[in-house]
Amino acid sequence: MKPINDRVVVKPAPAEEKTSGGIIIPDTVKEKPQRGEVIAVGPGKDGNLMTVAKGDIVLYGKYAGQEVTLNGQDYLIMREDDILVIVD
Amino acid sequence: MKPINDRVVVKPAPAEEKTSGGIIIPDTVKEKPQRGEVIAVGPGKDGNLMTVAKGDIVLYGKYAGQEVTLNGQDYLIMREDDILVIVD
Amino acid sequence: MKPINDRVVVKPAPAEEKTSGGIIIPDTVKEKPQRGEVIAVGPGKDGNLMTVAKGDIVLYGKYAGQEVTLNGQDYLIMREDDILVIVD
Amino acid sequence: MKPINDRVVVKPAPAEEKTSGGIIIPDTVKEKPQRGEVIAVGPGKDGNLMTVAKGDIVLYGKYAGQEVTLNGQDYLIMREDDILVIVD
Amino acid sequence: MKPINDRVVVKPAPAEEKTSGGIIIPDTVKEKPQRGEVIAVGPGKDGNLMTVAKGDIVLYGKYAGQEVTLNGQDYLIMREDDILVIVD
Amino acid sequence: MKPINDRVVVKPAPAEEKTSGGIIIPDTVKEKPQRGEVIAVGPGKDGNLMTVAKGDIVLYGKYAGQEVTLNGQDYLIMREDDILVIVD
Amino acid sequence: MKPINDRVVVKPAPAEEKTSGGIIIPDTVKEKPQRGEVIAVGPGKDGNLMTVAKGDIVLYGKYAGQEVTLNGQDYLIMREDDILVIVD
Repeated sequence: MKPINDRVVVKPAPAEEKTSGGIIIPDTVKEKPQRGEVIAVGPGKDGNLMTVAKGDIVLYGKYAGQEVTLNGQDYLIMREDDILVIVD
Repeated sequence: MKPINDRVVVKPAPAEEKTSGGIIIPDTVKEKPQRGEVIAVGPGKDGNLMTVAKGDIVLYGKYAGQEVTLNGQDYLIMREDDILVIVD
Repeated sequence: MKPINDRVVVKPAPAEEKTSGGIIIPDTVKEKPQRGEVIAVGPGKDGNLMTVAKGDIVLYGKYAGQEVTLNGQDYLIMREDDILVIVD
Repeated sequence: MKPINDRVVVKPAPAEEKTSGGIIIPDTVKEKPQRGEVIAVGPGKDGNLMTVAKGDIVLYGKYAGQEVTLNGQDYLIMREDDILVIVD
Repeated sequence: MKPINDRVVVKPAPAEEKTSGGIIIPDTVKEKPQRGEVIAVGPGKDGNLMTVAKGDIVLYGKYAGQEVTLNGQDYLIMREDDILVIVD
Repeated sequence: MKPINDRVVVKPAPAEEKTSGGIIIPDTVKEKPQRGEVIAVGPGKDGNLMTVAKGDIVLYGKYAGQEVTLNGQDYLIMREDDILVIVD
Repeated sequence: MKPINDRVVVKPAPAEEKTSGGIIIPDTVKEKPQRGEVIAVGPGKDGNLMTVAKGDIVLYGKYAGQEVTLNGQDYLIMREDDILVIVD
């Protein structure tokens, strides 16, 4: 996949099954994951270079990106500026 | 067709008739296709070159583009920035 | 008529009287035409040159432009960026 | 009157009393005139020169401009970009 | 008073007590004045020079500016671009 | 306090207890003060220098700025462009 | 954590348990803290350098930033321009 402009393809981490206190969360209240791995990075937009790189683990806002499914795997495609931090 | 500025003409792929589990989807709930083939590409806008090229298979957001019909074929005309990734 | 800035004067094509299947469409559901001929082209805006030229047949969005009547003929005046493609 | 920036003072043409078919229009449905004569032109904004000139007959959108009354005469003051075409 | 950026201090002209036909207007329907005298002019914004000068009589839109009271006198402080024309 | 970018810290003047006619205003209708003293000035934004300086008495719009409390004193932190005039 | 563009990671100060008059505030009316410590700073956006630095104590608006939890610690990730002042 080759993202357009400043877009980034992110593979979301699976939602955590437990709270930090060890309580199982029923499926309907599972929080949507906000952490993922960068899979592909666009060339940048308006001459600005990209900061994130393939393989980076990133945090992003709850409503960032558009979901696409490719070969049975769900991805989020977002603009780089929707990524908050690189967690390393 | 010669698109204006940063516009791209996309021929949407036909909606898939089955879910990945093999169940036939009745016509009314068929998901609108989000994958298509680039048919024509504009010259770019404000001096920015275009990234996609004729023949690219692309993914785009569910509500991207405007539908036009030409010679009985439906097309979507969208801005390049409405395209998410080139799938190759 | 000399359009201002990036405006283009378009003479809309008459609405088609039949569907592709040959059924006569009653007047109230006739689809507003989205195809027209470029009649006049402005000098461009902010130093950007114009792409369309007088005589081009163009497609444009359903709600593009403002209608004006001059000498009994209806025209649409739209910005060039409201034009989707040149059909040739 | 010296308009500020890219503003233009337009003297609207009187509303036409008849339709093209010769029917007298009662006062309450008279369409607001969209044609007028340029009376004064500002120096331009952000270094862009003006295209219209004093004496031009122009068409403008139905809701363009702000009405002012000076010495008993009504004028519209609009930005040049609210003018659609120069009719000559 | 030294206005900031592209702001202008205007002393509104008193509302006219009569219509042009000489009828006294009761206080509640008096039209808010749209004419005033420029009292002070800011240095301009983003390197753009100012066009209006102290002493100019200007027309401005009905809702332009913010009212302030200083030493018992009401003023309007507006951006220069809210001024429509200099009446001289 | 060091304001960020084009922000300015203002110490609002206490609301006046009387109208200019000398009538005591009950507490609930006291008008929020719109006059204050500049306490600290940011370095400017996007390379634009700041116009106001520490110690200036300024007027600002009724809803300008965000209130913060520091060491028991209330301040307003606003962008310089929210300041209307320097009163000197 | 490496913030993207002009983003800043802030560790909010714990909400104060008492008012300045020494009254214990029940949990439900505790004001959300608006003061925090800068933990990490992005490289800047569009070539603009960052003003805040790691370790700065800053004030920020009540609704600034997005909350993220990392290793059991809550952080706010905001744009630098959402920070009001550096308190030193």
